[in-house]
Amino acid sequence: MSATPTTAVTTSIGFTELVTLLKDIFSRHGASPEVARVLADNCARAERDGAHSHGVFRIPGYVSTLDSGWVNGQAVPVVEDVASGFVRVDAANGFAQPALAAARPLLVAKARSAGIAVLAIRNSHHFAALWPDVEPFAEEGLVALSVVNSMTCVVPHGADRPLFGTNPIAFAAPRADGPPIVFDLATSAIAHGDVQIAARQGERVPPGTGVDSLGQPTQDPKAILEGGALLPFGGHKGSALSMMVELLAAALTGGNFSFEFDWSNHPGAKTPWTGQLLIVIDPSKTAGQDFAQRSQELVRQMHAAGLRRLPGDRRHRTRANAEREGIRLDGDELARLRELARG
Amino acid sequence: MSATPTTAVTTSIGFTELVTLLKDIFSRHGASPEVARVLADNCARAERDGAHSHGVFRIPGYVSTLDSGWVNGQAVPVVEDVASGFVRVDAANGFAQPALAAARPLLVAKARSAGIAVLAIRNSHHFAALWPDVEPFAEEGLVALSVVNSMTCVVPHGADRPLFGTNPIAFAAPRADGPPIVFDLATSAIAHGDVQIAARQGERVPPGTGVDSLGQPTQDPKAILEGGALLPFGGHKGSALSMMVELLAAALTGGNFSFEFDWSNHPGAKTPWTGQLLIVIDPSKTAGQDFAQRSQELVRQMHAAGLRRLPGDRRHRTRANAEREGIRLDGDELARLRELARG
Repeated sequence: MSATPTTAVTTSIGFTELVTLLKDIFSRHGASPEVARVLADNCARAERDGAHSHGVFRIPGYVSTLDSGWVNGQAVPVVEDVASGFVRVDAANGFAQPALAAARPLLVAKARSAGIAVLAIRNSHHFAALWPDVEPFAEEGLVALSVVNSMTCVVPHGADRPLFGTNPIAFAAPRADGPPIVFDLATSAIAHGDVQIAARQGERVPPGTGVDSLGQPTQDPKAILEGGALLPFGGHKGSALSMMVELLAAALTGGNFSFEFDWSNHPGAKTPWTGQLLIVIDPSKTAGQDFAQRSQELVRQMHAAGLRRLPGDRRHRTRANAEREGIRLDGDELARLRELARG
Repeated sequence: MSATPTTAVTTSIGFTELVTLLKDIFSRHGASPEVARVLADNCARAERDGAHSHGVFRIPGYVSTLDSGWVNGQAVPVVEDVASGFVRVDAANGFAQPALAAARPLLVAKARSAGIAVLAIRNSHHFAALWPDVEPFAEEGLVALSVVNSMTCVVPHGADRPLFGTNPIAFAAPRADGPPIVFDLATSAIAHGDVQIAARQGERVPPGTGVDSLGQPTQDPKAILEGGALLPFGGHKGSALSMMVELLAAALTGGNFSFEFDWSNHPGAKTPWTGQLLIVIDPSKTAGQDFAQRSQELVRQMHAAGLRRLPGDRRHRTRANAEREGIRLDGDELARLRELARG
């Protein structure tokens, strides 16, 4: 795409080949075949779409947390059919994505029958981007909303100390003439993965992003990561939304709040042990014109108002490039991944 | 509460007396007894709780819009039972609150049975605060989320011209040892009613709130109201949430987007003719500990983190004062209300 010279040697890898490589890594580090399959697909999709903070960048953390025994890579989620619109899953101290995969057919059937359905996942670890969880629902014509809480690193607006997680909200809706409308936003001023990437690359984060260990504003990502904390986006409003995510993803699922788990006896543990909520709505129950035509009309008007880029547009362009030319990876990074798949 | 001297003469009025006065005003200006009852109660509750931008301040606008023939004060909402978790209401060009009142028993029954239910209101006018729509669900142990779109006055992040409404999101959840946790936030940087109040009082609005008719940043509320526009809160994130509100409140209900209605033939029309969505969840379907105990634990930890005021706390204190001492109103304002009830 760009003629900018880079010092690192970049290489490219096909999507299927990357999934296989990542599956081997997960399997090698204790995941069952099903868990390895789901996580590898999820992580490869993030990398393919240019969501680097949740792509292969996360693999060392996955390996470390699996090796620590903090998360059960062999967990078999237990799906509970609670009511005509309510599905619960006990992820059994495993990852959230296999729990979603296990409950997904029941959730979709309920949403199509009842018009709306909720999936409450508890006892789960979510270490990935949230948009891959909602986008597939929109691809089959459904509207989906999901929230997941994480680990204490955000100071509530007006408080002195961190309490909330980065607590993202993701939303997906179908539209008639293009890929679904999808967004995934941390309710913190910046995503935790982006702070880690800034620290690794020696860059500063924007003002208003976080505080240091003394509670003073800082733009140094290391000061945020080492005893500091993040701030919510948008002041008291982002803070209220983050609180809502704690209530929906933890209190309403039976999962842990972001401040409730203690991984101090598991050195290497990286994954928050919390809960996740998904709400899926069937827009074919809507009165009047087809939903996908209506959402397309909104997109048309957003462009007419001068908006050049919709949420998700960059991801879809990156995806299209990756499908033509393969997924570009740093040569050293690919070598490290191959190493992890062997040992 | 305060010994600050004021130039205006304030008086006080009991809640029931204020409801009766407002009911007379709505009836006198063409509302049916049921519509007058619902709107009077809604507006008096906002005033009682100190939500001044949605209290009696709104009455001249209600009167003007009713007198213009833009909204049907006699409308009888048509409730449609679509699926085990999906209720639709055609508000029949009336107000949204009577439509919610008409559908409420069915919505609650479905939420308790299915675990979750959605109410899609279309062809409706919403001119009030949103929290009064969700708070009563939490008072009966349910979790509620609502969104409503409004009228073009917010420039999407990255666009040149306004398109979205102020598009608020309101949320309510029960807790064990106190009133429900409730918030109601405009996805614009400031609520439209607060801009109107600032303009009336000759005050400036905070930086980052809006633009003038040339698209230049301004802190002058009059410049925002006269050809200017608001900005979303929190940059691209608030803008994404505002877009979601358009999709949920309009596309998913069968209502108008904020930019779709034309009231130019109705001088005096003030009320956006759009849609509203409510999602109600029954937390008794949750695994593990009682939801209200869990939300209480979150509140306890928020206080322990140094948070002195929760969302809704100020409203509840103002309400308690009003219940002891009556609702304080400016004497001239009360005289104007009495005038409107007569003529």
